[in-house]
Amino acid sequence: MDIIRTETACVLSSASVVGSQEKLGPLGECFDLCDTKDDTFGKDSFEKSEGEMQRLALKCAMDKLSFGDSDVDQIFAGDLINQCISSGYGLADFDIPFMGIYGACSTFAEGILLSSVFSSFAEKVCAAVTSSHNCTAERQFRFPLEYGAQRTPTSQWTVTGAGALIISPDAEKSMGIRVAECLPGKVFDAGITDVNNMGAAMAPAAADTIIRYFEESGRDPESFDYIVTGDLGFEGSSILLELMNEKGIDISSRHTDCGMEIYDRKAQDMHAGGSGCGCSAVVVASYFLPRMKKGEINDMLFVGTGAMMNSMSLQQGLSIPAIGHLVRFEKVR
Amino acid sequence: MDIIRTETACVLSSASVVGSQEKLGPLGECFDLCDTKDDTFGKDSFEKSEGEMQRLALKCAMDKLSFGDSDVDQIFAGDLINQCISSGYGLADFDIPFMGIYGACSTFAEGILLSSVFSSFAEKVCAAVTSSHNCTAERQFRFPLEYGAQRTPTSQWTVTGAGALIISPDAEKSMGIRVAECLPGKVFDAGITDVNNMGAAMAPAAADTIIRYFEESGRDPESFDYIVTGDLGFEGSSILLELMNEKGIDISSRHTDCGMEIYDRKAQDMHAGGSGCGCSAVVVASYFLPRMKKGEINDMLFVGTGAMMNSMSLQQGLSIPAIGHLVRFEKVR
Repeated sequence: MDIIRTETACVLSSASVVGSQEKLGPLGECFDLCDTKDDTFGKDSFEKSEGEMQRLALKCAMDKLSFGDSDVDQIFAGDLINQCISSGYGLADFDIPFMGIYGACSTFAEGILLSSVFSSFAEKVCAAVTSSHNCTAERQFRFPLEYGAQRTPTSQWTVTGAGALIISPDAEKSMGIRVAECLPGKVFDAGITDVNNMGAAMAPAAADTIIRYFEESGRDPESFDYIVTGDLGFEGSSILLELMNEKGIDISSRHTDCGMEIYDRKAQDMHAGGSGCGCSAVVVASYFLPRMKKGEINDMLFVGTGAMMNSMSLQQGLSIPAIGHLVRFEKVR
Repeated sequence: MDIIRTETACVLSSASVVGSQEKLGPLGECFDLCDTKDDTFGKDSFEKSEGEMQRLALKCAMDKLSFGDSDVDQIFAGDLINQCISSGYGLADFDIPFMGIYGACSTFAEGILLSSVFSSFAEKVCAAVTSSHNCTAERQFRFPLEYGAQRTPTSQWTVTGAGALIISPDAEKSMGIRVAECLPGKVFDAGITDVNNMGAAMAPAAADTIIRYFEESGRDPESFDYIVTGDLGFEGSSILLELMNEKGIDISSRHTDCGMEIYDRKAQDMHAGGSGCGCSAVVVASYFLPRMKKGEINDMLFVGTGAMMNSMSLQQGLSIPAIGHLVRFEKVR
């Protein structure tokens, strides 16, 4: 049994902080906070801005519950920046135990998974927090923005955003949503070496996890209102659907991807869609879970996908290993 | 209640892989595997060597139990390299679910903590694996080795090593050791900005966690045979003892530090001692736990300490936030 049952893990609140491009997109009205001026959130470096987004996202999720530091037992947080400094610095002001996690763009799903296990096992009130910032990620992984490098059609746009979820066994305070099941992913190296095509690297990892979930649970795509990946983008999503079809599983009527939802494909032209730890975080926290709360969605799989390389590993000729962690959100009342 | 009780989490096996300097040290005979030739483990880059050390450490821990991939349910792994690539690449060959974690030098303690919770909650067989390599860490965090930069007296020497622990609820197969309790640390910024004095940055975080543990558990230093930090080194350890004394708690008769144990201070002159995710991993896995198995130690606190900055955060004028995660190992038979 690989699936972990976490039935007592309730989602108490969710919150998001985004940059100006995300605010302009089709989900713009859903997000809680935004710096429409210059995406700096009042800080003098973009690394500090990203940390500030994490702080604001967690603060906002806690404020919705009138929670102070003593009401949260554990933070699980991570980001894309070297040594996860957005989390380490951004959340240092909270007087709350902290554990750092890393799964590239799958980090939000990993945080939800760990929060749900800790909540179920030790009755802890846990927070999952992740972020990405276009300006920190682009210069670290690709080129400094000032170069104005041309992007390839398969490249995704790193989302400027941070999301936070608070999970606890307290059903009374719940949004009416629980994390019923979790399935951790395996590292999967499909041999992709193109840093501008992360979707292709991550799609096989997502497929592996979804197939393992269906096999073990006995369920099929029709059991769910949505199967949401985050973030394969348009390129990776089309590969995922193909890989699933090869196995005789058609998820096309249920599938969407956070990286496909966050920007207007025509008006904003972000090429293959959004990506980054912040992408699935803000889309799940502020679009899918609120829809679930309203009763528009009853049962949903969320598969966070991450590409586990760094700049140097590609320079050294290695391909891109990827991972996909699955969590199942279920409406409970 | 911050302390997490994980009484059913048994340590099944532990293993370590080290470089040539570590083999020459006072604990040299304890370690399982070593590349005494050139610390490359047969790979053409030191980053790949570090990944290979993780693979070998986990393989060795599994071999001691005659375990194949299907006998292990979950890996928790991390390292110091950007985006934790030693773990992502090094462990990609195992057909085992994986979660990436980051806590700088506290990562091994974090991995043990998460393994113990998963083992207790979902009856999972878990592996905690971490590594560091002197040649990868020095060039990433300080200077390329070829510069021959002179080190300051307070600087620690990044250990070349990887350690692995297998934890499960199966008391039959146990080494006679359990992880009785865990206490996650809080991010603690003491305002230290000297990248060559990590011990000073981490000691306050270690003190905070140990004091919280004593307060909540009602225990005192005399309750334990050892209070082992990893890795404050000589400088950080002396600061920790002072900070504890200020609170009226004398741990000097019980305390030691993995960074103080691993090298011969006179013959090897590693200045303030060893550090890195691999330091506490190999010292706990191959020195302390085997002594516990033999009955020389019955009750021991291990506090993994980590400095959560990166090179850029210091260039941007920020100080070094740190963390200390505690696990309590107890002899059970």
